[in-house]
Amino acid sequence: MKSDLDALMKSRNLDAMLVLGDAEHNPPMYYFVGGGHVSGALLIKKQGEEPVLYYNDMERDEAAKSGLKTRSFNEYPIQDFLEQANSDVQTANALRFQKIFADHGLTKGRVALFGKVEFSNVFGLIAKLAKLLPDVEFIGESSLNSVILQAMETKEDVEVARIRRMGAVTTQVVGMVQELLTSSVVREDEVLLKEDGSPLTIGDVKAKIALWLAERGAVDVEGVIFAIGRDAGVPHSAGNPDDPLTLGKTIVFDIFPAEKGGGYFYDFTRTWSLGYATPEAQALYDQVREIYEKVVEDLDLNANFVDYQRMTCEYFESKGHKSQLNTKAPLDGYVHSLGHGVGLNIHERPGSSLTASGNDNVLKPGVVITIEPGLYYPEKGMGVRIEDTYWVRPDGRFERLAEYPYDFVLPMKKWKK
Amino acid sequence: MKSDLDALMKSRNLDAMLVLGDAEHNPPMYYFVGGGHVSGALLIKKQGEEPVLYYNDMERDEAAKSGLKTRSFNEYPIQDFLEQANSDVQTANALRFQKIFADHGLTKGRVALFGKVEFSNVFGLIAKLAKLLPDVEFIGESSLNSVILQAMETKEDVEVARIRRMGAVTTQVVGMVQELLTSSVVREDEVLLKEDGSPLTIGDVKAKIALWLAERGAVDVEGVIFAIGRDAGVPHSAGNPDDPLTLGKTIVFDIFPAEKGGGYFYDFTRTWSLGYATPEAQALYDQVREIYEKVVEDLDLNANFVDYQRMTCEYFESKGHKSQLNTKAPLDGYVHSLGHGVGLNIHERPGSSLTASGNDNVLKPGVVITIEPGLYYPEKGMGVRIEDTYWVRPDGRFERLAEYPYDFVLPMKKWKK
Repeated sequence: MKSDLDALMKSRNLDAMLVLGDAEHNPPMYYFVGGGHVSGALLIKKQGEEPVLYYNDMERDEAAKSGLKTRSFNEYPIQDFLEQANSDVQTANALRFQKIFADHGLTKGRVALFGKVEFSNVFGLIAKLAKLLPDVEFIGESSLNSVILQAMETKEDVEVARIRRMGAVTTQVVGMVQELLTSSVVREDEVLLKEDGSPLTIGDVKAKIALWLAERGAVDVEGVIFAIGRDAGVPHSAGNPDDPLTLGKTIVFDIFPAEKGGGYFYDFTRTWSLGYATPEAQALYDQVREIYEKVVEDLDLNANFVDYQRMTCEYFESKGHKSQLNTKAPLDGYVHSLGHGVGLNIHERPGSSLTASGNDNVLKPGVVITIEPGLYYPEKGMGVRIEDTYWVRPDGRFERLAEYPYDFVLPMKKWKK
Repeated sequence: MKSDLDALMKSRNLDAMLVLGDAEHNPPMYYFVGGGHVSGALLIKKQGEEPVLYYNDMERDEAAKSGLKTRSFNEYPIQDFLEQANSDVQTANALRFQKIFADHGLTKGRVALFGKVEFSNVFGLIAKLAKLLPDVEFIGESSLNSVILQAMETKEDVEVARIRRMGAVTTQVVGMVQELLTSSVVREDEVLLKEDGSPLTIGDVKAKIALWLAERGAVDVEGVIFAIGRDAGVPHSAGNPDDPLTLGKTIVFDIFPAEKGGGYFYDFTRTWSLGYATPEAQALYDQVREIYEKVVEDLDLNANFVDYQRMTCEYFESKGHKSQLNTKAPLDGYVHSLGHGVGLNIHERPGSSLTASGNDNVLKPGVVITIEPGLYYPEKGMGVRIEDTYWVRPDGRFERLAEYPYDFVLPMKKWKK
């Protein structure tokens, strides 16, 4: 939680954090500012002190909405520094930052850097600033171990409420997609048809998803996965827009919308087979469902997330599939990790990768995670994944943040086998 | 254009470029990959050679769609490096990059870095890599002067076609908003009402905008500005969702959607006053319109963009307004620059700021720019801006990429003064 930040900074011996960039679609800045039209901003948080947000004048009203202590960049007019910098903008900005640092008493110590920004300019700027401030050490922490992702790992109730609301939006939209598919007319060759008689395609379904999310104040920032057949067998294949929907093939529908403006995510997957399923696909589904249920039943407060990944690998290997347990980088079978934290980032702490440290990825109160086992056989034209998002409640119970049925074969209303 | 990259790299003495991050919402990577569900990728482009895209196996199909030369990160399994790195992921990645660099013959020289990424981890990774490769100099170019933004500055016809299509979407949606407003019932106190009899708010209008954009395959990535009264007087105030729409106040409607997935932008502004305008607002509007028309008429092939900013400042100052010409950071009057390039970034080259170099910001064939003069008086509760996007055609003519009327006072269909 945000209130852990000072202790985390102290444990890392960090004197200050710098967050750069826009307030939207930039998780570290959003975490402090809460979104809004604040662009190219700078936030300085010293250990034990309140953060200060530097904004551009045109955005003074938006900056004020953050409720933070704010200051205008124009207290340090860029023109003053451009002269000294021979009109080099990056150098002028480094000189401006040097002055801002001095006014915060930051002339030495360890300063960690954050923000989703165009790397090029900020890297050049920090290189120049580092020369101006030789006693300041600039730190680039590893994503998943950074103080900010450590703080984000445990959620406040108000954050969980927002994730839960995205879960409600997600499952509503999934229900609408299910209704769209199952009420379609089916052609003789088992292709689904739109009302105008042309084939219903992946692209059509995705357009509806974008629309239905927008109507509910959500955005599909990272691109929904709606993949059929072979594409379903490649976990992150987003699906080919022109492919028609047909019966009897696995459809992996992985949807992870965020609040508009780049806020909290929800993450959810169902796998469907329309009308009927092949016995082989049904067998895959049954195995994924079985281990999913087993994992969910076994989830223990303060257990290591990695242990459940190991359990899942062992289960799948016992059924004859490859997994990362005994294959370096499998391209079929169980090819990914069991889950991940979800918040302002679609992937955050804790992690469940076998290479992650167990003690450092614990299912402690406040974490929000996905559980998402899957099996993939692209050459056989099939893939299966089931995913829900869970919250570890302060009372130690695991709560699924949105409910949706686990039907695999979806009966078609206008078709009979 | 992309074909200029090698010459630009040569002129900067760059041996290679590295682009990091996702393919979407990341302009430099999108420029090469063209979008799609490719995340955490690495693109290496050596001077004079084709780029190579490194992808994660789960995204192999999406990577292949780019049409680029591709290679899997799994040719360099992370497990091999984790052991050597004592399980430190950032160090392991630096070792992996070192090996990839070696296989590209990159053991010395100058390498520029690009990509919209979380700064923290990449900064730490590059710091570690720099120690492993002491003869490689890593360069962070200033945003607007980087080789990639220089290349992006002039557009190919296929890029212009995409911007033009976004222009058509934009003006369609603006027309729908105009119809929504002007067909509303007006209450006695001049507040617009929804069909259910409650006030029509900024938030209502923005929700419609998001929906209508989504229906057309566009997204409002950065947040539309729809601001009334005092908020209209602060250029980047996005507007307060709860504010009701009322007659006789300036409404600044600045809409800049992008293709879904983070593609090309269009940028457009109109200012409206519903039902009637105060004489003072009308006078502001007339001045903004006059200088807008004058600038557009005077646009010359290969002229310096900055000269038109100076012309605009002089015009506004002659009418008694402050501008950046003689006031360091004005908070009212004409407070910003005349325009900017538009493409995969909402703000790109050329620039028109008075601090920008004239010779370096030229209206050459292929550039796409906005022209957007404005006047702002927040304390008087008003602001005005007019903006269109123009393309400098290969034949030297300036083409407005979407048409929309310049009416200021919008007559209300269900109200008479």
